[in-house]
Formats: sequence, C-alpha cells, structure tokens
Amino acid sequence: MQQNVVIIGAVALGPKAACRLKRLDPDSEVIMIDQADRISYGGCGIPYFVSGDVSDPGQLQSTSFHMIRDAKFFRDVKDIQVLTNTRAVSIDRSKKVVFVQDVRDGKKQTLPYDRLVLATGSRPKRLAIPGVSLEGVFTVSDLNEAVAIKREIAGGKVEKAVVIGAGAIGLEMAEALADLWGIDTSVVEVADQILPGIISPNMARMGQHHLKENDISIYLGEHVLRLEGESRVERVVTDKRTLDADLVIMAVGVTPNSKLAKDAGIEISANGAIVVNERMETSDPHIYAGGDCVEVTHLVTGKSVYFPSGSLANRQGRVIGTNLAGGNARFEGAVGTFIIKLFEISLANAGISLKRALDEGFDAVSVFVVQFDRAHFYPEKDLMYLELVVEKGTGRVLGIQGLGSVNDSMFARVSAVAAMLKYRPTTSDISNLELLYSPPFSAAMDILNALGNTAENILAGQNRVIDADQFSHWWTERDRGDTVFLDCRGWGNAEYFVNKYPDHWKSIPQDELRARMAEVPKDRKLVLLCNTGVRSYEAQVILDQSGIRDTYNLQGGVAALKKWGLDL
Amino acid sequence: MQQNVVIIGAVALGPKAACRLKRLDPDSEVIMIDQADRISYGGCGIPYFVSGDVSDPGQLQSTSFHMIRDAKFFRDVKDIQVLTNTRAVSIDRSKKVVFVQDVRDGKKQTLPYDRLVLATGSRPKRLAIPGVSLEGVFTVSDLNEAVAIKREIAGGKVEKAVVIGAGAIGLEMAEALADLWGIDTSVVEVADQILPGIISPNMARMGQHHLKENDISIYLGEHVLRLEGESRVERVVTDKRTLDADLVIMAVGVTPNSKLAKDAGIEISANGAIVVNERMETSDPHIYAGGDCVEVTHLVTGKSVYFPSGSLANRQGRVIGTNLAGGNARFEGAVGTFIIKLFEISLANAGISLKRALDEGFDAVSVFVVQFDRAHFYPEKDLMYLELVVEKGTGRVLGIQGLGSVNDSMFARVSAVAAMLKYRPTTSDISNLELLYSPPFSAAMDILNALGNTAENILAGQNRVIDADQFSHWWTERDRGDTVFLDCRGWGNAEYFVNKYPDHWKSIPQDELRARMAEVPKDRKLVLLCNTGVRSYEAQVILDQSGIRDTYNLQGGVAALKKWGLDL
Repeated sequence: MQQNVVIIGAVALGPKAACRLKRLDPDSEVIMIDQADRISYGGCGIPYFVSGDVSDPGQLQSTSFHMIRDAKFFRDVKDIQVLTNTRAVSIDRSKKVVFVQDVRDGKKQTLPYDRLVLATGSRPKRLAIPGVSLEGVFTVSDLNEAVAIKREIAGGKVEKAVVIGAGAIGLEMAEALADLWGIDTSVVEVADQILPGIISPNMARMGQHHLKENDISIYLGEHVLRLEGESRVERVVTDKRTLDADLVIMAVGVTPNSKLAKDAGIEISANGAIVVNERMETSDPHIYAGGDCVEVTHLVTGKSVYFPSGSLANRQGRVIGTNLAGGNARFEGAVGTFIIKLFEISLANAGISLKRALDEGFDAVSVFVVQFDRAHFYPEKDLMYLELVVEKGTGRVLGIQGLGSVNDSMFARVSAVAAMLKYRPTTSDISNLELLYSPPFSAAMDILNALGNTAENILAGQNRVIDADQFSHWWTERDRGDTVFLDCRGWGNAEYFVNKYPDHWKSIPQDELRARMAEVPKDRKLVLLCNTGVRSYEAQVILDQSGIRDTYNLQGGVAALKKWGLDL
Repeated sequence: MQQNVVIIGAVALGPKAACRLKRLDPDSEVIMIDQADRISYGGCGIPYFVSGDVSDPGQLQSTSFHMIRDAKFFRDVKDIQVLTNTRAVSIDRSKKVVFVQDVRDGKKQTLPYDRLVLATGSRPKRLAIPGVSLEGVFTVSDLNEAVAIKREIAGGKVEKAVVIGAGAIGLEMAEALADLWGIDTSVVEVADQILPGIISPNMARMGQHHLKENDISIYLGEHVLRLEGESRVERVVTDKRTLDADLVIMAVGVTPNSKLAKDAGIEISANGAIVVNERMETSDPHIYAGGDCVEVTHLVTGKSVYFPSGSLANRQGRVIGTNLAGGNARFEGAVGTFIIKLFEISLANAGISLKRALDEGFDAVSVFVVQFDRAHFYPEKDLMYLELVVEKGTGRVLGIQGLGSVNDSMFARVSAVAAMLKYRPTTSDISNLELLYSPPFSAAMDILNALGNTAENILAGQNRVIDADQFSHWWTERDRGDTVFLDCRGWGNAEYFVNKYPDHWKSIPQDELRARMAEVPKDRKLVLLCNTGVRSYEAQVILDQSGIRDTYNLQGGVAALKKWGLDL
C-alpha cells in the first residue's frame, strides 16, 4: 500500500510504529519528526544514567547490538526519514497536512500525510512557585536535561539536593543522587505517603523506612512554597521547614502533550489526554495516537486512565504500525503495573490499591502476607511482603502490591497476577495458581497461594486481622489497659518484650496454647502476633474454639512491624 | 460437624488436608496414619539435603519457624492423632472401616471413618534388571533413603556414581553428587534427550551442554542391561558401554500407589492412578484422594494427566480439607508447570511442548527467542531463552519453555504465562502482556512481548525460521554448496568465520544490506544469522523486498548455537 505516513515524536512509540509499518509494508513513505536532536532513547534509563550505572547517554539511545538510533540509522537501516530539531506547529486535517518548523533556523515546511501518528508524549509538570527558573532547578524531561544534571553533579557542585515529589521518578532520582554520588538528599512530597496513588500506605510506609535507612530524608504532607537563591538555587522553603539545596529536581508528575491534537479538533479527555479506541485511532480515523499523550482503558475498573509508560508506548506503537499497514491489531488496555528498585528493595503494583478500589466504589478489603520467597528449608531466601486487594462477596481480585528484594522473586509474583487480572480472577484462582515449583525458586505452598488462602479466610470471617497501622494505634494507647498483646512465638522471641512490657505483653507459644488456655486473659481485647501472622492465625482459631473471640491477628506479624520501622 | 476422618499418608497432602479441616471444623476427629516413621516432610528438598545445602533431615520436616512436624506436634498443636509405622492393609467401604497394621510388631487395628482421605503418594519405579538389589543401589523414595545415600557419600565410599534416568530427580541428584561432593557422575537415559516429556529437544540440548560443561557425562538413548558387583554394586552395563560405579541412583519415574484403592473397588485410570473429580472425591463420595496417587485434568489439553508434585499435593490437600468441613472447594486441574536448577542455569515449562502438542493433534509450531532479561542498557543482565508453542490458525498459546540464569527472571516469565494458560491466551495476549516494567527488572519491550510478536510474525509467514538443529544439519552438509551462511552482524563478529569458511560464510551487516544488495548471492539458499535473530529477521524483510525469498532466519542466532555447544 503506497501511502505517506507522518509521525510526530521519535522517542518510544514513534520509532516502534514506524519500524513495524516498514517491515509489514516497505512501500510506505514514512517521515518521523522530533523537536529534539536526540531521538529513540530509553527515557526510563535516565535515573541510571544520572547515577552512573549507565555511563554514556549513547547507551540509552543504542540498540541492544550497540548501534546508535539516530537519523542516519533510521534512514540507512530502516528506510525511514527523520527530521530532528523539527517542531510540529499545527495540523490541517481537511487538507491532511502538518505544518512544521525547524527549531534552530525557523524554516517552515508542510508535510502531507495519508495517515498521521501523534507520539507527542508528555512533559514534566512545573510547580507555579517563585524560584523555579533559578539555575540548578531541573525537571527530568529528556535526555538533554539528564546530561545537564549529571554535568552539575560530576562537576562537584552539589552537596545537598532536594527532590520535589516522591513518585517513581523522584525516588529513582533520589537514589541516584544519594547512592552513587553520596549527595545529602531530601525528598518533599505533598501527599502523606511516598508513591501516592501507586502503592498502598502500608507498602509505602515500609519503603519510606528503607529510604530512611539509606539516609534519604523524606518529608511528607509538605507544600513547597518557593525556591530561593541568587542566580542559583540555594534553599527550598516548605510550609514546615527550609532545606538547603545546591540542586533541585522537580518530579511532580507529567502532563500529556495534547495541544497539537486539541487545536486540530481531535477529541481530548477531561484530563487533557488524547482519546483513542482499541485500534489506537483518535476521533479522526486517519490519525493514530499512543504513548504518553493518550488515555487507555483500565482493565480492572473499565474506566479511562492515564498511564505514561515507555513499555506501554512500545506495545501501542506496534499496534499502530500493524494497523497502518492495513492490519487489525488491538490494544485492549492496561492493568497498571509498576515496579521500582529502591536501594536493596523493590516495590510493585498491578491493578488497583485498596484506596483506589474504595474510591471506585468497590466494597474491598486488603490482605497482607509475609512469607519466604523460596522453600523455607532452602539456604538462600528472603522474606517477601504481598498485599492483595479483593472485593468482598465476589472474592474478585482487584490488585496486588509487593515489597521484596531486588532480585526478581517479587517481580515474578506480581507479574503472574498482572497477567491474570484482565480475566477477572477470584481469590480461589490465586489459591490454586500454579507457579513453577522447585525449592530454589518457590515454596510448595507459594506465598501467592498463601495470599489467596488468607484472602479466602478473611472474607469468610475465619481470620480477623489488623494491620501494622492499627497495631501502632493500639500500642500507643496501651496504657488504657484494654488490650493485651499476646505473643504466639516461642519464649526466646517473646522474652525481651515480656520483660520490657510486663503489663501489656504476654507470651503463650502457639503450640502450648491448648494446654495453657487458662492463662489467656478473657476480659481484654487480644492482639495476637507472631513472626509473620501464621501462628497467630492458628492461635486465633484455637481461641475461637474456647469462645474467646475478641482477638485480632496482626497481619505480617513482627516482620511487618520491623519493616515499618516500628521500634517497640 | 462431628465426624471421624481417617487420612492414609502423612507426607504432603495428608497433613495439609488434616490441618485445614481442623481449622474449619475443630470438632472433627482426625486420625492420620503413615507406614514410615518420618512424616510431613518436603520431599522435593531431598536433593538439597544430599548435596549438603540442607544440612539436617529435620530441616525438611520443620515448619518455617523451626518446629519439627512429628506425631507430637500434630497432637499438641493441631489436635490431630498420628499413627506412624502403620500401614493401611485394606478398606471395607460398606462398613466404612480401614484395617491397619503396625509395621514393627504386626499389631492390627480397625479404624472406622465417616470420611476417608487417600494420600498414598507414589513410589519410585525399579527397572527389572539383574543387580538392582545390590548394596549401593538406591531410589529416591523417601527421607530415610536420602539419609542412607548421604551416609554413603559422607563416608567417603563413593568416587564414581551413575544416575539412571535424566528426569528431574535424576538430574537434581546428579548435580548434588557432582557439585558439592566432587563425585565423578554419569547419567544414563533411555530417551534421546534429558528431561524427556517435560521440555523440548531444543531446551534439553542446551541443558545437556551445560551439564557437560559441569563435568557430568550424559549418555542418551542407552538401555541399562544390568548392574554388576559382588555384594556391592561395581558396574553399570548398558547396551553401549560399561560404567564403573560405587553408587547407583535409579530415578526412572514414579508409580501412583493405588492398590489399596483398587482393591477396595475405587475407580482407577488406565495409567493406574486414582480417578477424582474437581472436589477431589473418588468414585466413592465418602473417600477423597489427592497428591501423587491421583490423576488431574490438564488445563491445556483437557485430558487426564498424572503430575506428581509436592506443590499440587499441598493445594489439593487444602481443597480436600475445605470439602471435608462441608465446603465446596474445587481443584480445576493443572497446566503442568516445571522448573529445575542445574548448576548455573534453570530450565522450565508451563503447558505442553511442541512434541506433545503434535502428539495431541494440535497443528502447532514453536517459536524461539533470545533476549536480555532486563533493559539492554542496564549493567547487570543475562540472556534468556524462551520457546513458545502455538497453534497455527488460532494463534492459541499451548505452552512455554525457558532457559535462564538461576535468578528468578526466567521463572517470572514462565510463571506469568502459566498463570494465563487456563484462560486460553493467544499470541496477541502475549504480545500485549503487561509485565512490570523498570530497567532493573525488565525491558520496555520485554522478551515475553517479543516472543508474542515473533510468534505472530512466524504464523503470518513474515518470518521464516530454522532452529539450531536444522542449522547444524545444513552446516554439516555445507560442502554440497547449496547454502550460504549470511552473517548480518558487524564485521567484527563475522570476520573470524569469514576467514575460516570463505566458501560458506559471508558478511553483510544488516545496516549495510540495502546498499550492498548486489553482493547477495541469488542462486543459493541463504541462512541468515546474527547474535539473537533480530537483525537477521530485519535482513530477511529487506531481502524479501528485493525478491530474494529463499532465506531462513536462524532463531536465537549465534547465542543459541553457543548454548547448544555447536563448535563452528
């Protein structure tokens, strides 16, 4: 099919769509334009370039076989024409032309198209506060800005840095600054948790504690009022404190670049993203869009959602390439997966968090399990922390969140659930999920299975639980005297606490509970705890049999308290 | 519900069913019997006990909180009565009693039941050849036998060992003997590949090469005729050679223990396993069965299949426990997952292999992709090898096999597909599978997505491929002169081969192919190759445009040849 295709944007989706099209339909004429000079790079690699893990920006722009994806590469290898430093000014849909302009010399051109692809991406939000234009204040918008940040750091100018925003990019940048460059780094976040809107308060609290252990200061619930300094930034002033800063990274989210589309009369969502169907067509069937400038369907809620992600962009790009070549590929939507490495841990999500589920009107509950990632007798193993969000009544699984080591064990569990989510699994599907089993990789009853089982028990009312947050409230109020903390572990584990808190902490190992039932306080609320929540659940079952039912099992046990940084 | 439940077998499924029942229905009277003295252990840990990774057999018998699961534990902690050293002799279903006998003193008892659970497991097959009763010949039937094997090794008696059978247990035992004890180990297998019936010949060949690199001798397609020696085994005689051996491990598969059920008139399958429904009920609704003595439904083929596995046993045990307590839990079936660690690699499966698919009547093809497990610019990464089995026409995904490092990256990919298999995914579901993306964990276009994409291209006839096996045939016949091996990598990679094989090996880097089209031989078949198969696919597309279509893209490229141990 001889056709002219113009693609606006050449970072992730644009090149993917172009290359796919040319493989399927070599006769198409493809012109790809981008306002920057560097194109086709892995933007998600920027924090690793800043940290030094990736030494050269060219590596982010290379193929896996070390070929730089520049305009020459696309021309010689892919037969695709690329105009860099070229901005799309406007689209005339009736004439099917794009007006473009060279950003260096202002020269204008008109590019006719049969089909047009909008891969305009997103741009970082900037706070509307004084001082944002001072030197030393950066966003993480593109590879050139990353190069500038690294130049500042490598020049030895930066001793103290403040990151505004505790989302993914903010935290990755904080780690990059602190870990490899030893910069005294603070993160200021307006929400009351890190990674707001992405992971649960429970997981966020554990992640926050880990960042603190790695000398990153986190200030939650603080508004940045202004940035101060002469020509260069020197201070960040919040509503609660003033932080010295030689460098400020503003990472407060991104906005879809949809003005070009909007000006051309293409449908835009209430949130400002381009609206597309499953074929990635905009409201104009001759114009496709994808990547960070569009909304997609959330496969759990069924609603439109904005998920800027280099991974989705790549897959949508392939769908567009196929459809440009006359095919009928579909992008159904996304389940909202997320993972981040933070020093020695990883945090992840698939689907929706409990808060989001409640906001969406689901009658939901979350279930938290801590277990080893491998057979408990296998020598190398780590505890893993998973939280499943389930709908009461139906038992439908709405999401999963996890904290694990930086190996791929937690990644594996959350990915497996991510793969199922669009099929609307229930707790029973998780209970019976057939992970690959062998002691060096998993447990016979894997943590995912345990998570499904626990969810079933909680939904059935057989396991009455509290989380670390509730625990800490009751612990703070322990002098009221209405609660006993019953340690179901062996005496060796309980001894320290019983001696320290004789009025509140009591030890009856779970295996002795039937024999020592007479010792159980019957006039007070009992918080049952063990290392991970398994023995305390067993204890709860035994107490139920004796008619002692005002009991609460601490999900995740002492392991969760430790990960929270609760110092008892 | 006051009821008597008798459970025959106390290794994996039995204890799980018993404990689940008692948690849901504490009033049930549960008696669990086992003919052995050691109960409730992780049998899959035996190779790690033999290797020394697990130092004490008690660790395999412990809870994750270091409590030994013996008869006393079950009585005190779980309120379950256990009779060890007690064999079930027969069942009278009309009277609802089990006749049992103490294996030490021959004392008999009659145990009445309201519900009965058969958790009789499996036993290792023994070859019917001379010499199997010699000293030093073992199966891997239970923990006591493992203790005996380790005693022999630790006693310094074993310099040479022969493992008969290259299935999972055979190979794990071979690694245990060779790796940590330095024993000169050979494996003899009657089939023409390792892990027959489990993974593809392609993956098996790569695994075999890795075993060879680790000094394990593998003899395929050999029948063991007899074992020789005075009182103790000294030699293994096959139809092709004689191997000296101080120790022989016979690991030629297992047989379900179903005689007790069969004698009682319970339905048994043609393969000798107990037949159960989704509730894990046998043909007698008062009798449940599960674990290594039953068949389950294969969720890909829909047929009955025998999958002995400690992991399935645990999950089936929970289903039985729930149903014993009056619930209605279901075990739908299994997708046949498998993973094994072999020195520095892991091999895995979910679903069915190509051979199995063809045997089952599917018009199937397999697709092989090699790619890094993380973003290619991330410093720590490894190549991963995945093979997807798909049905032509429908694009239905029937199975996946993988080879990767011993980290969890390959485990994660195969687990994700395993989680989807029961929903009958197609290649498009794999292309769009939303793995969690961040450079330290995955690639923006992850290997799984690439696998789905490649499968689509191959099914659509856009990518015409050969595998390493076909390559090695054509390479062997290269002096016929009808084939040119066209190296699409840079000259630096190709130079060595061009100089060594000037008549057969030609170099045109893929990025120069359009410009150097005149150099492409047009009278001979072209085998296109690069490092992993990506650039050679691009080259094939470009050649197609020039009307050169007698071309074959080597799937997995030179990386696959290396993994095969093909020495060019």
